[in-house]
Amino acid sequence: MKAPAQEPEFVAGNGLLHRRALLGQGILLAGATATGLGASLNGAAAEPLKEGPWSMKVGSIIPPYQTPSRFEAHVVRTQDNPDGLPRNSRARTPHHLLKGIITPNGLHFTICHGGVPDIDPAQHRLVIHGLVKRPLMWTVEDLERYPMTSRIGFVECGGNSAPLFSNEPLQENVQALHGLSSCSEWTGVPLSVLLDEAGIDPRAKWMIAEGADSPRLSRSVPVAKGLDDAMIALYQNGERIQPGQGYPMRLWLPGYEGNMNVKFVRRIKLTEEPAMSYYESRTYSQILPNGKAYRFYFLQEVKSFITSPSHGMHLKEPGIYEITGVAYSGTGRIRKVLVSADGGQSWGEAALQDPVLPKAFTRFRMAWKWNGGAATLQSRAFDESGTFQPARADFVRLRGQTTKPPAVTDFPSQHFNAITSWGVDAKGAVKHVYA
Amino acid sequence: MKAPAQEPEFVAGNGLLHRRALLGQGILLAGATATGLGASLNGAAAEPLKEGPWSMKVGSIIPPYQTPSRFEAHVVRTQDNPDGLPRNSRARTPHHLLKGIITPNGLHFTICHGGVPDIDPAQHRLVIHGLVKRPLMWTVEDLERYPMTSRIGFVECGGNSAPLFSNEPLQENVQALHGLSSCSEWTGVPLSVLLDEAGIDPRAKWMIAEGADSPRLSRSVPVAKGLDDAMIALYQNGERIQPGQGYPMRLWLPGYEGNMNVKFVRRIKLTEEPAMSYYESRTYSQILPNGKAYRFYFLQEVKSFITSPSHGMHLKEPGIYEITGVAYSGTGRIRKVLVSADGGQSWGEAALQDPVLPKAFTRFRMAWKWNGGAATLQSRAFDESGTFQPARADFVRLRGQTTKPPAVTDFPSQHFNAITSWGVDAKGAVKHVYA
Repeated sequence: MKAPAQEPEFVAGNGLLHRRALLGQGILLAGATATGLGASLNGAAAEPLKEGPWSMKVGSIIPPYQTPSRFEAHVVRTQDNPDGLPRNSRARTPHHLLKGIITPNGLHFTICHGGVPDIDPAQHRLVIHGLVKRPLMWTVEDLERYPMTSRIGFVECGGNSAPLFSNEPLQENVQALHGLSSCSEWTGVPLSVLLDEAGIDPRAKWMIAEGADSPRLSRSVPVAKGLDDAMIALYQNGERIQPGQGYPMRLWLPGYEGNMNVKFVRRIKLTEEPAMSYYESRTYSQILPNGKAYRFYFLQEVKSFITSPSHGMHLKEPGIYEITGVAYSGTGRIRKVLVSADGGQSWGEAALQDPVLPKAFTRFRMAWKWNGGAATLQSRAFDESGTFQPARADFVRLRGQTTKPPAVTDFPSQHFNAITSWGVDAKGAVKHVYA
Repeated sequence: MKAPAQEPEFVAGNGLLHRRALLGQGILLAGATATGLGASLNGAAAEPLKEGPWSMKVGSIIPPYQTPSRFEAHVVRTQDNPDGLPRNSRARTPHHLLKGIITPNGLHFTICHGGVPDIDPAQHRLVIHGLVKRPLMWTVEDLERYPMTSRIGFVECGGNSAPLFSNEPLQENVQALHGLSSCSEWTGVPLSVLLDEAGIDPRAKWMIAEGADSPRLSRSVPVAKGLDDAMIALYQNGERIQPGQGYPMRLWLPGYEGNMNVKFVRRIKLTEEPAMSYYESRTYSQILPNGKAYRFYFLQEVKSFITSPSHGMHLKEPGIYEITGVAYSGTGRIRKVLVSADGGQSWGEAALQDPVLPKAFTRFRMAWKWNGGAATLQSRAFDESGTFQPARADFVRLRGQTTKPPAVTDFPSQHFNAITSWGVDAKGAVKHVYA
């Protein structure tokens, strides 16, 4: 029944294992009891299974709305403005503690520029006006009658990963570095249906989307995007969109800069020219080394990062580990993800978890045999358009870098999508490094 | 820019519209202002947009773990044992209030036979023993190092939809009738990997899976399923599995009867014969009209139900509505879903929302023009094996039916998968009917 013990099949340097190791075919662990992680019971069967107190008494009553175990109380978003000072505030997704492609609603990242508004959906309205034949207004109830669509996809802040513009690798974890990106199943009304009903004036090239939050956050979006895959999203992972994601409705622009996905959306005005609003002319403009800035840099480009092992973790002992993370691209599907354990000297192709969906998180996995020495873990994603993640050095040569700021949140730069590196030392400690 | 007003294209009786009506191409609403739902502003633009109080002040602080808006406090599971009496307890998913295929973790259905245990993951162990070469034991930390897999799929109680065995249509909503079925992205270790490491004795044909809850719920599962797609699930929609779903780990058997997906799993014993445990010999055995019972009826067969419009809803006025619901099959993918608005006299094929995944909820959609008369809405799912949902009359002829019991929860019957019908009267009220 069992093949004799054999060395696992390596695909790249420093212990990266062939994808077959992930398939549950016993290639990885077959006969190799030295690498198997199950503790042998030496025929003592279930003897070590002590009865916990929870097995000796009736449990608690099932609540109407379920919440995580109290033992998972540390699995939360980090708040960078917990006292509600009069500025923006961010809550970051704890990627190092999550697995899969769906971000649970409780942990989806949020950025609000004037706190989270408490909107009564019965009073909220959506208006489409400006260069249209018939300016129209909808209630939530009206929108509920429309044909809807559902789609699993990511939203990412243009400022996600900005700490990697620092000229020194900040000793922060994946939540602090990349926590402004999350992925959900969104359900709502295709914006194209509503635009069609209003009737677009041929002169209209832009849509100014405005939120009902106190800053009335507004962004200019090309009408072409509105007619493509834009959505007035009402649901997130099945239930109504949460307050931090724009309750009762948000504009969702798959693959476009997070800030453009206007939350609490109440108004879409069709115009000939963009509004040059605060958030597109001051913030969220990528400033280049020559002092100029990219104008209307909408696309969130191909990206990946390893979520485990990652900064702050500690490998217990040499042996088998799973290297895993997420990859995504605003352009479309991820085609492949390469993983290196030797700082980019050699690469192996990671297994991509089905389903691989366009403009959505794709979970990648690579089995790794850590030999107890130093290692530098990297991932590099390629999308179906042929675009791939640049090396950090190449990226900052074009986009610039900054000196270490007083705090992670003070980086001005946007749209960082280069490779992230995690260094493992001989004691198994994992740290953020540049390589 | 706009086609002249035209009658929408019907595909079946009583107002079912062609799928193009869902594509946002303006076919449905183009020029047909009489059916469009946006209220015309007559050039008044955004004038009716009153400023809500939430737009006039700074919002609240973003919390570490996000929860739904207070205006959605009614979107909860129903509890059938809220006082924790010494019996089983169920919490049902409110399908009528959800859209998409993912059930958010807060609303995933739960059945516990001894309440929800409060398990310390640091003390929990998983043991595989019995007819294996090496009995083995794992901690949660051990399992975290294994190659994992993620998969979106449903779990359904064998007793879901049991109220439809009643000889009269119970006046209950889709949550009460079909709320014991939910769909998540599950992530964990393929059971085959752990079985391989333990080394299966060729005599082993069954696995007895046992939970750490107070009833030590145990079920017998064929080893062949363990080597196929069974998983020791640790994560649910990205975060750790919730207490009601088996924290810190559950056995997940895609497509098999919910009760077999042993929550809080602590022990898997390989044996030659099944255990004939309480939950497979007394409960969860389908009793047939001739007094005999099906033994080991594991598969959750092809099924669908319309979630909207559904019992308890009220159509406001004649016009366009979306008929939508979920379909799924324990056998594999859904191939098609037919929808009828005239009680099965004519059928139109619904649009299936991508991605259509095996053993997962598939969201179906059909645009419908309600003419204000009586209508009977039905859905009928077909899976890729060629199996399809039976009509209720055909189904109960084989499986039997019961008289109306004192309460929905007292039905003894299992594995109901026939067609559900919602009757719409001339006032727009939607009720559960048999047709």
